[in-house]
Amino acid sequence: MTDMKSMAKNTFSAYHEFLKIGSTRLKNQILETIANKIEENQGTLIEANKKDLDAGEKAGLTAAFLDRLALNDKRIHGMIQACHEIVKLEDPVGGIYNMVVRPQGFRVGRMRVPIGVIGIIYEARPNVTIEAATLCLKSGNGVILRGGSHAYYSNMALVEMLREALKQNQVNQNLVSYVDSKDRSVVDEMLIQDETIHLIIPRGGEGLIRSVVEKSRIPVLKHYKGVCHVYIHEEANQEMAVRIALNAKIQRPAVCNAAETLLIDQAVAEVLLPGLVDKFQEKGVEIRGCEKTISLIPSVRPASEEDYYEEFLDLILAVKIVRNIDEAIEHINKYGSAHTDAIITENIRAANQFLNNVDSASVMVNASTRLSDGGLYGLGAEIGISTDKLHARGPMGLEGLTTCKWVVLGEGNIRE
Amino acid sequence: MTDMKSMAKNTFSAYHEFLKIGSTRLKNQILETIANKIEENQGTLIEANKKDLDAGEKAGLTAAFLDRLALNDKRIHGMIQACHEIVKLEDPVGGIYNMVVRPQGFRVGRMRVPIGVIGIIYEARPNVTIEAATLCLKSGNGVILRGGSHAYYSNMALVEMLREALKQNQVNQNLVSYVDSKDRSVVDEMLIQDETIHLIIPRGGEGLIRSVVEKSRIPVLKHYKGVCHVYIHEEANQEMAVRIALNAKIQRPAVCNAAETLLIDQAVAEVLLPGLVDKFQEKGVEIRGCEKTISLIPSVRPASEEDYYEEFLDLILAVKIVRNIDEAIEHINKYGSAHTDAIITENIRAANQFLNNVDSASVMVNASTRLSDGGLYGLGAEIGISTDKLHARGPMGLEGLTTCKWVVLGEGNIRE
Repeated sequence: MTDMKSMAKNTFSAYHEFLKIGSTRLKNQILETIANKIEENQGTLIEANKKDLDAGEKAGLTAAFLDRLALNDKRIHGMIQACHEIVKLEDPVGGIYNMVVRPQGFRVGRMRVPIGVIGIIYEARPNVTIEAATLCLKSGNGVILRGGSHAYYSNMALVEMLREALKQNQVNQNLVSYVDSKDRSVVDEMLIQDETIHLIIPRGGEGLIRSVVEKSRIPVLKHYKGVCHVYIHEEANQEMAVRIALNAKIQRPAVCNAAETLLIDQAVAEVLLPGLVDKFQEKGVEIRGCEKTISLIPSVRPASEEDYYEEFLDLILAVKIVRNIDEAIEHINKYGSAHTDAIITENIRAANQFLNNVDSASVMVNASTRLSDGGLYGLGAEIGISTDKLHARGPMGLEGLTTCKWVVLGEGNIRE
Repeated sequence: MTDMKSMAKNTFSAYHEFLKIGSTRLKNQILETIANKIEENQGTLIEANKKDLDAGEKAGLTAAFLDRLALNDKRIHGMIQACHEIVKLEDPVGGIYNMVVRPQGFRVGRMRVPIGVIGIIYEARPNVTIEAATLCLKSGNGVILRGGSHAYYSNMALVEMLREALKQNQVNQNLVSYVDSKDRSVVDEMLIQDETIHLIIPRGGEGLIRSVVEKSRIPVLKHYKGVCHVYIHEEANQEMAVRIALNAKIQRPAVCNAAETLLIDQAVAEVLLPGLVDKFQEKGVEIRGCEKTISLIPSVRPASEEDYYEEFLDLILAVKIVRNIDEAIEHINKYGSAHTDAIITENIRAANQFLNNVDSASVMVNASTRLSDGGLYGLGAEIGISTDKLHARGPMGLEGLTTCKWVVLGEGNIRE
């Protein structure tokens, strides 16, 4: 059985060693070595993945599950590309910000530094192993990975490459550890190592995440779900409103930043909604409407209270006609998941009110919720999206994997 | 019994209402009203406090405990002053930072916003009630207070003033709630309200804090203890080294940023340490030394391994002679509490190595650890000090009580 306490301690020691030697140059060299290892060992990797797929088929896993588990040339190429992309990103570590001179004569500022040891708990998706490990390494952190047990052989092969790449660059291999036990109690053990693990990032379904939060003594960054809204204000540009509403729902419905609910002011509903519903239905979207919607468009199926809390991740859209912006904001703050919400309006006061009062990680004016993304925001790569309010909120990239420490430069200053 | 779930829900609703109306002007008005209420009701407050003190004496509380509990004119004046000081601090909420235009044509930046509802769990010190509530209000947050039960009557009187001040300014009184139950299980109940409480700040002894961390599903900001180091490098200015070492230990030994351990390079120990130990002993400081220290100064009492982990909060200093800066850094990262550590050196490479590799919330060159303080760093008031690595690290002021949300300003942008 994995001795979790020792593993965490070893990764913590390796992180402290790496703190001394982890220059940008060395970090990039490690990432390039990882890319090369994956390329060289593509055959071994495909074989290992085959073992997982065979076992998964026998175990009766769904086709969708097996698809997420499967590695092919294209996906492996994607992993290699990801390494090269992260090499190109600016190293967030070491910069000192906001250094000021205080009246007492010393200078004080904040230096950006790694967080420490990060635990990543995820499902049976082998590409996450590489993405998570490389982002943690580039930001100077140690990482303890715990992937879904159905990806066991694939992850073992990948982790061996990661650790080989560290060794080849004279770096302590324990900087990347992998919890290979299928025993769930080992994860519970991991979640109480708060002296040696500094952050837990669970990636997966709501059930997995809730159980992690319940048990963890270590801070957890997460999002449970994405119930995103598009709100069409009475002073919206109508062509724009239609374009954004369609894009937010349809462009890729199975992801967390797709819209799940459309809110529309009653002043424009009569003019705008019937045509918009037609367009949605043409694209195969099922509409679930409030009473007012149904009285306007009787063919629409009624929405239940629960529908407004629901992350459909599918071609289904809840629709509600609201009296005004106040009701829209109230609805979003109540039913939403604080992920991403957008208003469509030409009115600057409405835009400001929406920006100020919607309590979500991303708040948008005249843009599609689908733009809520680390790459599009300019973060480079994304380790995840947080709907928590502390530390990192919304798309979280390399900077989210760092913290700041205070730096004081004195000339013999003491406290009088 | 307090219905914790309802209380948290009500404070959360009040926070959302306040998000709409909480201008800087209104917030400052509330703070001024609070100051006036305390001034007007000084007699009632002293009476209530008398009840707590009488009950405390009967219960056999220590003199030190009763001293922290006691309110007198000076302390009440301090509370009133604190309100006025917080009025003067810049409102952290509403600014938008780092707004850039992305290649896709939309703008994206981060707006500083309140965190939400903050739970403060503290011991029987009534002044914390006012400090914590006013800082939370100025930063736009709702607050749920839970003070030590021995301050029950004092806190009831103060909370009434806080809530009266809200009412007088037409603000929902539930923005400030107080858990008046003496039942500890109510606190456990509080710690699982993760849908309506967003941050827990425990202030008190290590035992209190550990039990909060163990049970909380809500992020906790804290510091367990302050084991701070002064490290005298071989190239230190000797006069400066002596001045800073004495100040760090003696100026106020009972607080968390006082030094507990002195590290000194063996190259200068023979010249510097005997005189320094003399000076400490003159000031009544007990020295506990490593073997090398004792062979140099035989009168010194030996330090145990545990002494190096200890927060003495008293006129006791552990001393260790180290081979070089590497051993000093290793010692600090192992035995320290990641609070505040200082190097004294004239050598720029040593200074940089110390800054880069010591993994603490505040790292100092040629300055006393006693300078690690929100006021001295320029934060204004301080809600606490965090040795955690996420969100807020080191002294935590108004900004630490806020978070950022992403703001996207588009012109009809969609995801292609």
